[in-house]
Amino acid sequence: MTPSPIVERAGSHSSLAITHIGELVTWDDDQPIRRDAGLVIEDGRVAWVGPSADTPSADDAIDADGRAVVPGFVDSHTHLVFAGDRAEEFAARMAGQRYEAGGIRTTVAATLAASEDELLRLARRRLAEARAQGTTTIEIKSGYGLDVATEERLLRIASELTPETTYLGAHVVPDGWDADAYVDLVTGDMLAACAPHARWVDAFCETGAFDADQARTVLEAGMAAGLQARVHANQLGFGPGVQLACEVGAAAADHCTYLTDADVAALADSGVVAGLLPGVEFSTRHPYPDARRLLDAGVRIALATDCNPGTSYTSSMPFCIALAVREMGLTPTEALFAATQGGAWSLRRDDVGHLRPGARADLALLDAPSHVHLAYRPGVPLVSRVLVAEV
Amino acid sequence: MTPSPIVERAGSHSSLAITHIGELVTWDDDQPIRRDAGLVIEDGRVAWVGPSADTPSADDAIDADGRAVVPGFVDSHTHLVFAGDRAEEFAARMAGQRYEAGGIRTTVAATLAASEDELLRLARRRLAEARAQGTTTIEIKSGYGLDVATEERLLRIASELTPETTYLGAHVVPDGWDADAYVDLVTGDMLAACAPHARWVDAFCETGAFDADQARTVLEAGMAAGLQARVHANQLGFGPGVQLACEVGAAAADHCTYLTDADVAALADSGVVAGLLPGVEFSTRHPYPDARRLLDAGVRIALATDCNPGTSYTSSMPFCIALAVREMGLTPTEALFAATQGGAWSLRRDDVGHLRPGARADLALLDAPSHVHLAYRPGVPLVSRVLVAEV
Repeated sequence: MTPSPIVERAGSHSSLAITHIGELVTWDDDQPIRRDAGLVIEDGRVAWVGPSADTPSADDAIDADGRAVVPGFVDSHTHLVFAGDRAEEFAARMAGQRYEAGGIRTTVAATLAASEDELLRLARRRLAEARAQGTTTIEIKSGYGLDVATEERLLRIASELTPETTYLGAHVVPDGWDADAYVDLVTGDMLAACAPHARWVDAFCETGAFDADQARTVLEAGMAAGLQARVHANQLGFGPGVQLACEVGAAAADHCTYLTDADVAALADSGVVAGLLPGVEFSTRHPYPDARRLLDAGVRIALATDCNPGTSYTSSMPFCIALAVREMGLTPTEALFAATQGGAWSLRRDDVGHLRPGARADLALLDAPSHVHLAYRPGVPLVSRVLVAEV
Repeated sequence: MTPSPIVERAGSHSSLAITHIGELVTWDDDQPIRRDAGLVIEDGRVAWVGPSADTPSADDAIDADGRAVVPGFVDSHTHLVFAGDRAEEFAARMAGQRYEAGGIRTTVAATLAASEDELLRLARRRLAEARAQGTTTIEIKSGYGLDVATEERLLRIASELTPETTYLGAHVVPDGWDADAYVDLVTGDMLAACAPHARWVDAFCETGAFDADQARTVLEAGMAAGLQARVHANQLGFGPGVQLACEVGAAAADHCTYLTDADVAALADSGVVAGLLPGVEFSTRHPYPDARRLLDAGVRIALATDCNPGTSYTSSMPFCIALAVREMGLTPTEALFAATQGGAWSLRRDDVGHLRPGARADLALLDAPSHVHLAYRPGVPLVSRVLVAEV
């Protein structure tokens, strides 16, 4: 049977040598992908990379037996903390039924009704599920609370799971609120309560959510409170989100499904990372973003799951890689790069997303000889062992 | 973390009760899907189904704790016995490069070069991978030998893994052969060597493979030797394959991507099962078959992986279910039905594909409350435990 994914803390070994790596993806400039390689980990960091036969000895050893080793996936966009699911809404949508009730407010209601212990238990379980599929760095947003206490609670929970926590009070305008009054709350008491638990501030800049002025207000308030910006932009139609992300110097503009040439140029010029979330298009039957167009224009891209119960309830980065190759014009290597180094760019991290010496020893062993199999063998759980650095 | 899939032999329990099944899919006429159910297995067969609270006691017990239980998947179309892979060909195809070399003959050459032990080891590993994803009945074809000794060897290996073995000497015409001369071999010495190890005879009836007369000759010879017929039909364009399948009374016409109204009517009238293999369309960027059209016309359909190294190297029935919902117009329930009962029809089996009393105790526990999650959570390995009957 498929080996069960083993998730281990790399720091539990004082030093560890992995030999006979059939293919080692480091993203090193000179030799981004090595054959028959070895890798040594010391104190949770990559200490050495080279030919398998030259691998220095270490306290512990793994024989990869020709399997591929890739950097752990960096999932730069998830909504992992919530209660309930929306399977019935999904089934109704797939059957072509209109389903106007429900939506995000269904999840807000279920989340409000759940205890903090239950929310933490559910989120831990989803995190473990993602880890077992090779995700070693993950961003988690709030946004299913929409009141001060619940947004703060969601971020406290998220910060137990990852340092990459994002305050998304500006997810939608809650029922019964005037949008501007809600923005006042999001930039006032809610921000004050949430900022201590967040690294990032995000806003959903889209028709039906927040317009450019409202989103700018939210992002600038968050930045003034010490958070860094990222934006939900241009998911459902053309709009100002991408330009706003570039204007405020956000790390990322995520979704990017509907882009004008000016949007693409702004992304390329600014260095803002375009986050592409093909699980959403898969689960909503919307058209996929054109990753090829972005790469050809010099835009940096990241692949992420957008794991959430409404529009993309997948935690599988390998699935997103397979979709990016099938549907978005990427080669398997480009898709893996976007799922690792691209995610690291999106989160402004230089210690993850690659396996050059000095990197965190976050990696996945694949039950396959090459990273190409992540797209070539869609749906098959190929991640057989995951190391997560303790540093 | 995700529980590792546990694959167990159901006969190893003399009797086993499963309680607190959040959703039990039996495909029973009166109550095809039950909530809060119990199930009892005796001697490898389903002995009782009913409300959880009424479950009779048994020697062993499993508390499903609200998880869903579905019939084990019936994968009615695979090419599981081969050596080598074609990852480079896949990557080149995805990059839009023409890749006319290679193809099936690459796999034939690698398979010829492999020892019987190696072929068996590789096939066992792929079978275990499929099992861990919930497949409990699997069809396996020959067709990567194309000479008498190798076709016979592939079927001997396949018959160690499954009773559902298919003689596919008529896969392609090997290099250097005249098609009619090769058909003589396929219906002569090769059939005589292979028939003892096969239940089914298959032919690839398509432009570039075998025409209708050649395919008919192969199928009729196989049937005269005691095999039952199935056909590769209408994959790459309109053609005579489906009509031929109906004419000879085949169990299944697989692929069915390009169908005229007359083809659809013939399938509906004859009861020949249309096997749909969306992994192929995913991995080749071809258009998907229209499952909705077939169901609406009263055609019986089966979902299968077509697991093979060239055009669909997935062993994941859950992935095929997700694709069938996204791309082929099926509801999650219809897709699961096609992946279980539909596969059983395709293989003319009444003991698998459902969990009514008397069925083999082949089943999958999902790490989810409902079968809808198989499509709602694409790419996520949700199968947490698999029982395979020993009967």
